[in-house]
Amino acid sequence: MTMVTREMLRDSPVEILLDEEALACCIDEALACAQACTACADACLAEDAVEQLRRCITTDLGCADVCATTARVLSRHTDPNPAMVRIVLEACLAACRECAEECEAHADMHDHCRLCAEACRRCAKACQALLDEIAAQALR
Amino acid sequence: MTMVTREMLRDSPVEILLDEEALACCIDEALACAQACTACADACLAEDAVEQLRRCITTDLGCADVCATTARVLSRHTDPNPAMVRIVLEACLAACRECAEECEAHADMHDHCRLCAEACRRCAKACQALLDEIAAQALR
Amino acid sequence: MTMVTREMLRDSPVEILLDEEALACCIDEALACAQACTACADACLAEDAVEQLRRCITTDLGCADVCATTARVLSRHTDPNPAMVRIVLEACLAACRECAEECEAHADMHDHCRLCAEACRRCAKACQALLDEIAAQALR
Amino acid sequence: MTMVTREMLRDSPVEILLDEEALACCIDEALACAQACTACADACLAEDAVEQLRRCITTDLGCADVCATTARVLSRHTDPNPAMVRIVLEACLAACRECAEECEAHADMHDHCRLCAEACRRCAKACQALLDEIAAQALR
Repeated sequence: MTMVTREMLRDSPVEILLDEEALACCIDEALACAQACTACADACLAEDAVEQLRRCITTDLGCADVCATTARVLSRHTDPNPAMVRIVLEACLAACRECAEECEAHADMHDHCRLCAEACRRCAKACQALLDEIAAQALR
Repeated sequence: MTMVTREMLRDSPVEILLDEEALACCIDEALACAQACTACADACLAEDAVEQLRRCITTDLGCADVCATTARVLSRHTDPNPAMVRIVLEACLAACRECAEECEAHADMHDHCRLCAEACRRCAKACQALLDEIAAQALR
Repeated sequence: MTMVTREMLRDSPVEILLDEEALACCIDEALACAQACTACADACLAEDAVEQLRRCITTDLGCADVCATTARVLSRHTDPNPAMVRIVLEACLAACRECAEECEAHADMHDHCRLCAEACRRCAKACQALLDEIAAQALR
Repeated sequence: MTMVTREMLRDSPVEILLDEEALACCIDEALACAQACTACADACLAEDAVEQLRRCITTDLGCADVCATTARVLSRHTDPNPAMVRIVLEACLAACRECAEECEAHADMHDHCRLCAEACRRCAKACQALLDEIAAQALR
């Protein structure tokens, strides 16, 4: 796999207003989290105890959708709407925390839930770092 | 076109915790808004004055992604995570308001921006109605 | 709900190369089918017999993704790539047929599967009509 | 960034019927290609010569949607529908070839088009490898 997120940011004809490394990290973690959540929902569905994993599946599917949207919104820098970026980052941070909490409840029983929770925590951290930078810029 | 949103809610084996009419309305408006925003971005791209419509295109594309995610999350009721529903509704309300404001700025010049702004306002209203109901339920 | 698909096509600054009614019908059926498939996967997950509905859930989720992509691609007419439109329509036709067949196998037991199968058949028919028109245009 | 595609496949409770390395490669390339296409559409929109890049933007947006759908469908292995997997892989292969061809036409002028074309070619190659394996399995 060759993610080209950083190269695409570097070659963009527009001036990127956010820290490029924090931004690329957040895009990539959102994509990784969307994939982990999609795969975790699928793995939960295959478990014998699927009846006990319904909330985990529903939460995974929602978090996958939110993270996919986040990766897309963060990939657009041509005359962007700063409010839109903040709205999406805040939703992604909150969704990843919910999903991490849900998956952590089964992490000792299902390795896919442990891996998914870790991906959610990394994505939440990357969203928080970007939100912190946006807040710091606003103070300058 | 035959939307089956209401029938699907009625035939669901789970008890839907929200008002079914408000919920179906919000799902359908989110789908309609996602389509309108996708089409408005495309129409803006075709305009002679595309250089002046860059922010409108970027905002449309973001709003389309958020609305599509919202329609999906609101279509899942099996052991749902109430926080996830609220997170997504709040993001959708805010994104639709941003996009409506942007499109309204060109509504007198471009009919597609006028139609898109109207779709965003209807979706925002449907999100607000559902959020109000969730807040009222929490007080009961 | 106020779908504005037809108005958006009418107000587009580009000349639409396909029959606008067939096109609007296909966009709307793809959106309706994506919603029905998302809701059917959710309803299947809630059934007591969820273990017997795993293939139906997996197929529903795939069909929902394909239909959502189709609605988006068909909403873009600014200097479009005709091959891309055909590729997506053919995939959507085939995916909807697979999902209809799967859901029809449980249609007498689960009303949500019956409704979902009907939505898939309508979407497949709309894709076929658009593909037929594209083929007829190529012969002119 | 920590993609967990391989770990998720390894920890799945279901037996994966496809070669895990070819599958993980295809999922990751589809995600990388979706990101590159989204970013290329955004970069094209910012160029002075945006009027000449309309077809590139429309093709990028379509390819991004198809690749995102592919990554999701390939991440589901619980009682999968083999036809659905093949339908999506064939569409993704064809879409990536169209987009690569379009972007290659501007690759000497715009580095983002060169990078995007390369991502499309890698994704097409990964789809072809998986389709070849599926065909070989059918002969066994």
